[in-house]
Amino acid sequence: MEQVEARIRSSIDCEENLLTDICRHVIGAGGKRIRPGVALLSNKAVGGKNGDDIINMAASFELIHSATLIHDDINDLGEIRRGREAAYKKYGVQKALIAGDFLFVRSFRLGGTWDSRVVQMVADAATAIAESEIVQSSHEFDPSVSQEVCEKIIEGKTAKIIEAAAMVGSYLGKGSDDQVQKLAAYGLNLGMAFQIVDDILDIDGNVSQLGKSKGVDFIDGKPTLPLMFAIEDPQFGGKLAKMFVKREKTKQEVEEALRLVQKTEAVNRSYKIAEDYKSKALQNLEGIPDSVFKESLSQLAEMVVSRRK
Amino acid sequence: MEQVEARIRSSIDCEENLLTDICRHVIGAGGKRIRPGVALLSNKAVGGKNGDDIINMAASFELIHSATLIHDDINDLGEIRRGREAAYKKYGVQKALIAGDFLFVRSFRLGGTWDSRVVQMVADAATAIAESEIVQSSHEFDPSVSQEVCEKIIEGKTAKIIEAAAMVGSYLGKGSDDQVQKLAAYGLNLGMAFQIVDDILDIDGNVSQLGKSKGVDFIDGKPTLPLMFAIEDPQFGGKLAKMFVKREKTKQEVEEALRLVQKTEAVNRSYKIAEDYKSKALQNLEGIPDSVFKESLSQLAEMVVSRRK
Repeated sequence: MEQVEARIRSSIDCEENLLTDICRHVIGAGGKRIRPGVALLSNKAVGGKNGDDIINMAASFELIHSATLIHDDINDLGEIRRGREAAYKKYGVQKALIAGDFLFVRSFRLGGTWDSRVVQMVADAATAIAESEIVQSSHEFDPSVSQEVCEKIIEGKTAKIIEAAAMVGSYLGKGSDDQVQKLAAYGLNLGMAFQIVDDILDIDGNVSQLGKSKGVDFIDGKPTLPLMFAIEDPQFGGKLAKMFVKREKTKQEVEEALRLVQKTEAVNRSYKIAEDYKSKALQNLEGIPDSVFKESLSQLAEMVVSRRK
Repeated sequence: MEQVEARIRSSIDCEENLLTDICRHVIGAGGKRIRPGVALLSNKAVGGKNGDDIINMAASFELIHSATLIHDDINDLGEIRRGREAAYKKYGVQKALIAGDFLFVRSFRLGGTWDSRVVQMVADAATAIAESEIVQSSHEFDPSVSQEVCEKIIEGKTAKIIEAAAMVGSYLGKGSDDQVQKLAAYGLNLGMAFQIVDDILDIDGNVSQLGKSKGVDFIDGKPTLPLMFAIEDPQFGGKLAKMFVKREKTKQEVEEALRLVQKTEAVNRSYKIAEDYKSKALQNLEGIPDSVFKESLSQLAEMVVSRRK
């Protein structure tokens, strides 16, 4: 991971210091590095050797992720990211938009050594992000989004790129087809569990621990699993739905809504689904030979769902 | 070019129709296709054979370009693009931003078959776009930008990617190092001439012919060569500078400013510089063997500077 961090840092150097500063502001703030972590561990788990290609690959996943964070915050008006002021707030929308594009380009540059199968895996996962953002935005302020659509959004937004990280990592590590497939499935299930818990924490989490604002999905009218479950509640759902669809919400309304959600079974139901995905992820690891790397993948899955307020 | 158009069209297909629609809105509106045109002609001029790689490459350049147009319009609030309503105005900022990202990703996907040298050429040119946008935005509403900085901005914004198109096209066509270098220099000079004339037309052009709004650079306080030359004018420059730095300008003020610019030597001086770049571009073609393709490259250079209102 140290090599990956160094590669990420060197990838954002360029002639315009401001561009590098914006990227450092976002990337240097930390973050969980799940995507590069999964790529590296999947690589090692199938016996991959240290090499420039896997370091580039892992760094590239984090650059794509950071690009989408910067652009997401512009679109969602998210104010805090990784414990820091969102890039567009600090540097302006214009420069943040450019910085996101720059990160896409730099991620692509790192891909110079990959074969076409790898490029397609990564590009298809990145396409899924864009597609699911479109689906999500077309369901904004819609209080009747089905569980299926919510999960579809999560899959495209988060799980597909983690699937790609596991798939590409193990592929570059010369894993067998079966191993690549298993680790890909692990990544997909891990990603689902991770995003569901993330959406729970937006309701339930501790702001200082989250490193980002809270209640954002509710404010932005974004359909997430816990919010949709809460709106299904016989007692509080009707009131929550009415609040959810409002384009402008006061701070009091948001706080009240989050309190109401807590009175429903929404958080528990969502955790249960996240636990199911975690279990599937662990099952997917079963065919992989035992190693400290496999153990770490397994711990990662546990960790992802054990994040609570 | 027909094959390139077909490749562009198939590259923007995806599961979300809206995403494809937004891209079609921008790409289907036409445009001059200078980047893919230069890539193809440079390829053929050195004896390149028809092949999937050059078609992919040419399509990829147009996708990158279209992505930057969509994002530029968000940043500059440009209202008309290629004769149509700007994407962000028609579909909203959020969806347009995502569509731009999607085009970057799809451009990258087409790159799956390139070798790492090609990827680096393209990525470095795309980096130059982001860098120069940052330089440009840091000089917004600054009436004292030097000719050198203006040209630096143009180089990064437009010329570098046309240079890359020529370079990559001839490289994939198995041109000699000398030919690749000459065509690259042709592309750079062509790009400079092209952008200078584009900036002149923003002052001087015919809106229906331009396919975009007029006076936009002045309104946005963007330092272009003709605007900076006009501000240097001993008689009208002072007044123009005062108008240029205003963040809010009325329609009348913009019209008056464009009339004042016409009374200066700015447009002629700028055309002269564009002509100089065109001449350099033509000189760069001298070492290339005669062919209809070389002839077309030469005509392209003439056409680029002969665009007038």
